[in-house]
Amino acid sequence: MTNVNEKNLAKSGQTDENLSKNHFLYKILNPKSMCVFGANNNLIQTMGSMQLRNCLAGGGFDENIYPIHPRLENVQGFKAYKSVLDLPIVPDLAFIILPPKVVPEVMEECGQKGIKNLIITSGGFRESGPDGIKLSQKIDEIAKKYEMRFIGPNCLGVYNGWFHYPEKENAYINTFWIYVPHKRGNISLVSQSGTIAAQTAWHTNRLGVKIGKSISIGNERNIDIVDFLEFFRDDPQTEVIGIYLEEVKRGKEFIKLAQEITPKKPIVAIYAGGSDAANRSIMSHTGSLGGNEKIYDAVFKETGIIYTNSVIDFLYYLRTLSYAQYNKVFPKGRRVGIITDSGGSGSIITKMAEKYSLKVPEFSKQLQNKISEFIPPTGSKSNPVDITFFRNYNDFFVKLPKLLMKSGEIDCLIFDGIFDFQEVFEVMEKSGYPVDENIRDSMGLFFSMVIQPVQRLVRRKSIPFFYSGPQLYTHPLYREFLDNNINIFDLWDQPSKCMIMLVNYAEYRRKHS
Amino acid sequence: MTNVNEKNLAKSGQTDENLSKNHFLYKILNPKSMCVFGANNNLIQTMGSMQLRNCLAGGGFDENIYPIHPRLENVQGFKAYKSVLDLPIVPDLAFIILPPKVVPEVMEECGQKGIKNLIITSGGFRESGPDGIKLSQKIDEIAKKYEMRFIGPNCLGVYNGWFHYPEKENAYINTFWIYVPHKRGNISLVSQSGTIAAQTAWHTNRLGVKIGKSISIGNERNIDIVDFLEFFRDDPQTEVIGIYLEEVKRGKEFIKLAQEITPKKPIVAIYAGGSDAANRSIMSHTGSLGGNEKIYDAVFKETGIIYTNSVIDFLYYLRTLSYAQYNKVFPKGRRVGIITDSGGSGSIITKMAEKYSLKVPEFSKQLQNKISEFIPPTGSKSNPVDITFFRNYNDFFVKLPKLLMKSGEIDCLIFDGIFDFQEVFEVMEKSGYPVDENIRDSMGLFFSMVIQPVQRLVRRKSIPFFYSGPQLYTHPLYREFLDNNINIFDLWDQPSKCMIMLVNYAEYRRKHS
Repeated sequence: MTNVNEKNLAKSGQTDENLSKNHFLYKILNPKSMCVFGANNNLIQTMGSMQLRNCLAGGGFDENIYPIHPRLENVQGFKAYKSVLDLPIVPDLAFIILPPKVVPEVMEECGQKGIKNLIITSGGFRESGPDGIKLSQKIDEIAKKYEMRFIGPNCLGVYNGWFHYPEKENAYINTFWIYVPHKRGNISLVSQSGTIAAQTAWHTNRLGVKIGKSISIGNERNIDIVDFLEFFRDDPQTEVIGIYLEEVKRGKEFIKLAQEITPKKPIVAIYAGGSDAANRSIMSHTGSLGGNEKIYDAVFKETGIIYTNSVIDFLYYLRTLSYAQYNKVFPKGRRVGIITDSGGSGSIITKMAEKYSLKVPEFSKQLQNKISEFIPPTGSKSNPVDITFFRNYNDFFVKLPKLLMKSGEIDCLIFDGIFDFQEVFEVMEKSGYPVDENIRDSMGLFFSMVIQPVQRLVRRKSIPFFYSGPQLYTHPLYREFLDNNINIFDLWDQPSKCMIMLVNYAEYRRKHS
Repeated sequence: MTNVNEKNLAKSGQTDENLSKNHFLYKILNPKSMCVFGANNNLIQTMGSMQLRNCLAGGGFDENIYPIHPRLENVQGFKAYKSVLDLPIVPDLAFIILPPKVVPEVMEECGQKGIKNLIITSGGFRESGPDGIKLSQKIDEIAKKYEMRFIGPNCLGVYNGWFHYPEKENAYINTFWIYVPHKRGNISLVSQSGTIAAQTAWHTNRLGVKIGKSISIGNERNIDIVDFLEFFRDDPQTEVIGIYLEEVKRGKEFIKLAQEITPKKPIVAIYAGGSDAANRSIMSHTGSLGGNEKIYDAVFKETGIIYTNSVIDFLYYLRTLSYAQYNKVFPKGRRVGIITDSGGSGSIITKMAEKYSLKVPEFSKQLQNKISEFIPPTGSKSNPVDITFFRNYNDFFVKLPKLLMKSGEIDCLIFDGIFDFQEVFEVMEKSGYPVDENIRDSMGLFFSMVIQPVQRLVRRKSIPFFYSGPQLYTHPLYREFLDNNINIFDLWDQPSKCMIMLVNYAEYRRKHS
């Protein structure tokens, strides 16, 4: 987490902090105390134990954890209680990971105790046929009786990377059983699949997709996706929203709210229903009916929701929009400039750009003449600009991009190449060759001296500037880009795809604001 | 490199080793001696120096490297000669990385010396306008006069991971400037882009795409893609071919040869031409004219070449076909069984499968009854089978897949889940929790005890079995899968996409053999 992000979020001012703090969901995402049903000390085979362990790992709770267990004296270092009725306080949240049949009884006791908020992980409700439907109705009644709100059942609960922020600076809450937390940022996820909410964390972290909040809402028996959209609308920590959908229950409200949100905070959706077997799968998953894909297509179009079938595209779109929001950089048109150090990858990016209906204009003669000062005779000065095997960092990484951005001939820019030779130095040293310390130092300064100055112009001109290259996201320089909310792509397929998505969204945003 | 691969290759017997050893390209891929023009001791700024360094890193040359340099006495530890005419022997190969204008003169001297094979990296020929075209004609004439064959110009040359195999067991030659070599296997690449040939190595290694040979052919002035297809057809180390195309010069020969090859050795193509700016990019890249995408579509269809625009799909298709060839497992139909431990990822895989026209049949009542013995009541026994949060490794990873494979109701199988808790153990230990050594050991044996026995049935039944999960390819267990040529995917988009590609190829193969 860099300071940049946090400063930006604090400044954003698009949303009303008080509204979001007063929303009933705020307390579920930021409980000060919690009782837990279904955790023990077996951290391998008991899901509830993993979930409690992960809550504790976030460092947000001091002593305010209350395991409820019929036999154990102690659960994961905390005194265990036989019943919730024995607790010395009324916890902000009850977290239930028990077999479905005992859930109503436990809820009843929570109600008696005065607990108002619950997360119910337990599966086996409406997705399990007639008995499950009866159980669902039972928990509805209990919630109504005691004026309780609950997430689930059949869910993993919540991850909140902004847990009591800024009072607790680096705390988070993570009720998922996957112990890897997302790295926080301005994206909030709400998902009808626990897997999409939780198990994507390995990849969000790899790709630099910064998720501040991620909610697995399960069967949505009491709290649904519309509630969360409402909360995210007013939440200053949320600037981009990702949703995984299998159905929408409150269609009208969903559409109205989405239309209100998307011009300010883009929403990206992945919809898993639509085909026979997929609907069958969904029926057994959350018990919902799936649906006709065409209806969802229409809803997404009407509401400006960005839609994809692909998980990797979903993650890349979220990242692209997240960085656009951080930097406040949205393209004003669809003319893309492409700079490359290699004909092959340049051709692929170019072809993809045109396929996706970006424009790759041939540059004016004037501009071409200026470009030719920076590139060798074997290079190409039209668009794409091929700098070939490059030599002068300042020319290629600073002067050339600035020239294009100032030319008025492009609205966005993709720069493809190899940016760093740290690995080459290592190989050289292993081979016994001397490495010039001056060169090594200048490489270390590459990011602050070369990339960041260009990014200032990017923000001033509102011209998105993506980098791409063949190296892996594990590369330290790639991490530096991502930590600073600058898009870098580890191959050549995604830059054009993400750029057209951003161009289309920017157009939509202009039209609707 | 596992032994499995090498044994398989030795056994394959589909191709004629002698034919390939007698082909003129064999010597270019396996030179015993080489002279190098354009390398010095500056390993950062001189491309030729990097290229020489990478050739040496492969460990295939003993003393038989002859740098030619006008001033230096010594290049990278080898005695340098002022002229090729001074050399004590006639090298198998001349490797030229010099400015284009001096290339004819140097070639002339190589010819006088009696050198028959060359790699010409130098750019600045037909891709650079009229002067370059004249230069091209000049080198054609010289090659003709001395009966020389050359790769390039404007290329990076060759990577051969099977350099003098099996005499030199682990040697390779790598004339690229990227120092990362591909990990060898049964895939051969031939590419009109050096970037696709070389810079994909970070990703081929990450994804387990095992490239045995990779050729950057540049302008194809003398040796072209058809020559390489001919060589690969007869090469026993090649079982899958990948090509990156910007144009095809000898169209008829290309089509005829591809038709002959594809029923035995699948060919996957990425074609970068077709749009205005892409063709402009290609013109400046290799000087070719690009083309109309529809014509290429028709050619690919006619020849059974598998075609994609996406680099990541290209790599995944190569991997899928490579493992299919190693294991000799091709599906007999398009009915896919899906097993998952999560509703969300299961729904995504299922939807993608149906979108790509795989069939996801609902299982017979009989089969469903048998399945229900292995899954908890909250699971789903139809197709997809949702095992939910799993507990019994043997049931879920061995008995259940075997049951499906023996049922006669599926032709291929996708298994999605989290397979390993090594990371959980680490977290537990860090948190001060004891980890049961028996459990830890049994996890370590997971691969040999659980995955491999199932793979034997996979081969007997010829039912491809893909795994997928949310973890990263850096995970040790994922590496184990890939090292053993078993497909595992690090998210949920690719399994269905790769399976339908394999189903379609298997159908084509049956029809044409």
